Amino acid sequence: MAGIMRKIGELGERWVISTFIETLDLMPDMPIPFGDDVAAIPANGENLVVLKTDMLVGKTDVPPGMSLRQAARKAVVMNVSDFAAKGIKPIAALVSLGLPADLTEEDVKEIAFGLNDGAREYEVYIVGGDTNEAEDLIICFMLVGYCKRGRIVKRSGARPGDIVAVTGPFGKTSAGLKILLEGLSAPEHIKRPLIEAVLMPRARLKEGLLLAGLGALTASIDSSDGLAWSLHELSEASGVGFIINNIPIAPEVEEFATEHSLDPLDLSLYGGEEYELVVTIKPEMVDDAKRALENIGEHLTEIGRAIGEKRIEAVFDGKRIPIERRGWEHFKNRGNRANINIS
Amino acid sequence: MAGIMRKIGELGERWVISTFIETLDLMPDMPIPFGDDVAAIPANGENLVVLKTDMLVGKTDVPPGMSLRQAARKAVVMNVSDFAAKGIKPIAALVSLGLPADLTEEDVKEIAFGLNDGAREYEVYIVGGDTNEAEDLIICFMLVGYCKRGRIVKRSGARPGDIVAVTGPFGKTSAGLKILLEGLSAPEHIKRPLIEAVLMPRARLKEGLLLAGLGALTASIDSSDGLAWSLHELSEASGVGFIINNIPIAPEVEEFATEHSLDPLDLSLYGGEEYELVVTIKPEMVDDAKRALENIGEHLTEIGRAIGEKRIEAVFDGKRIPIERRGWEHFKNRGNRANINIS
Repeated sequence: MAGIMRKIGELGERWVISTFIETLDLMPDMPIPFGDDVAAIPANGENLVVLKTDMLVGKTDVPPGMSLRQAARKAVVMNVSDFAAKGIKPIAALVSLGLPADLTEEDVKEIAFGLNDGAREYEVYIVGGDTNEAEDLIICFMLVGYCKRGRIVKRSGARPGDIVAVTGPFGKTSAGLKILLEGLSAPEHIKRPLIEAVLMPRARLKEGLLLAGLGALTASIDSSDGLAWSLHELSEASGVGFIINNIPIAPEVEEFATEHSLDPLDLSLYGGEEYELVVTIKPEMVDDAKRALENIGEHLTEIGRAIGEKRIEAVFDGKRIPIERRGWEHFKNRGNRANINIS
Repeated sequence: MAGIMRKIGELGERWVISTFIETLDLMPDMPIPFGDDVAAIPANGENLVVLKTDMLVGKTDVPPGMSLRQAARKAVVMNVSDFAAKGIKPIAALVSLGLPADLTEEDVKEIAFGLNDGAREYEVYIVGGDTNEAEDLIICFMLVGYCKRGRIVKRSGARPGDIVAVTGPFGKTSAGLKILLEGLSAPEHIKRPLIEAVLMPRARLKEGLLLAGLGALTASIDSSDGLAWSLHELSEASGVGFIINNIPIAPEVEEFATEHSLDPLDLSLYGGEEYELVVTIKPEMVDDAKRALENIGEHLTEIGRAIGEKRIEAVFDGKRIPIERRGWEHFKNRGNRANINIS
């Protein structure tokens, strides 16, 4: 059988996910559809229990230079970021570990400290878990929280005319991964923040809770698979397109790109492992939303607007540049991750 | 550092778990302590959300002869069994997968079917998940359900005088694993049920819900790490000992043991991957509990009683046999699992 069947290395993660969705009996009246960033089940009355799991795998998610403590913290951040995008406060977590048998006492403590770092940073308690022996480091983290039905900001609510906005500049993790994985050089004053972006990512939880609390968001997602990928996901789920006229690029990324003759726009659009929020906002609420983030010392940047036609384009100085559906997809991207993820 | 530190292969799973418990900031007023079979967090009023995760790892949890469909189903059963032991009905599940990139289309479908088999068997819906590339097959399954505070049957409630009882005979998986892993022979009429016990284990969910619903149980655990191990866990959590005077051994196991000059008691006490319930019952409720299980075509077998002194002994014909704390512990049991697990 194996000889004639295609391998998932060719089929890609999206094929795997569709196969699961087609095969599984689905819960009637799911409060949030399969394929959004979190799952939810009815609790009592209008209350939902919100759930999320995301697995960190040593080989694909831990670049050289990242400590075990940082890797464990990142497993928390990855999950919290999805709660942030949906505007849900996480309460508690479970963690299931696959640990290679040759880890040392010190290694295990580092992992425990890293999980606790992440948990305390976002005020989550780890309440249970499971440990196992595995060939590679596996940290399967899962979050639970509560919300009222209708309160979750889905991927599917964007309407033509909505404003697209993001919580931060892009490209730092792309550049940082080029330094860590490909050994590219950078002057010390930009090297540090670029690497820091990869090793100590932050989830925009405060921002997500605030924006969702205002009732300003019509759709939302994080940028963990890259800004371009996030725009395509919002487009597909909402049935809209986007005209993008401003892509905020971190100044360190501009400098890094110049140094290595790279396209800073490419670094910013087609990165990943970056946990900014990509949201659509009712036009009349944009000012309120911006002010709310400024009040907590953060910044919301308009980058474009939603249109009825399902195309996604950047328009700069009258020049149209299509934004491709490219980013990180498991299984299809083999080998040196950064090469595929960022190029 | 690595040179002088002990490896977790020597330290064992219990050391790893203690290290995590010592390191993590714990949620105040946890409804159920770390180290029990499920976790729980307060919902509203007296309601709790109950959570569980258990990871299936190809190398250690999938014996030769087990199909991918059976392995995926087993990942569900492992988790449901812990809900069963605590008397909690599972409602929904998430699943996080680590898949080797050379799996075929057919393999992925088998895994999806197996997850759905297990989910439908116990009336659970899978509502979300995550897929990743990994070296070995990883199925990290997690369950969620609801209950009233005080309704969870903990490991810690056994009192001297309580009756110890189990939901089924023991030893079939031990014998089945000897056939699958070591190639031991067996006549067809016993080979089939012994192998079936390994490949298609069943969680005692109906039984667990019924017994907990009666209010009959003072403590409970499943026998996934072996009957002896379960008794030691109950003893440690409850601060009691046990005198065991009856160990129900499956007739196929008696026959298999005779054939290979093995001790059937050893096969039954020190096995694992077997999902019977091991419970303690208030003496005045034993008859009700037995009758309730008989009404659904199942059987509850008394095997002994709890005592104040913290020793665990089998007493047969006046002969005392200590029941050792042996069973399957991850990391410490390297190599051929069945050799260590069952001997």
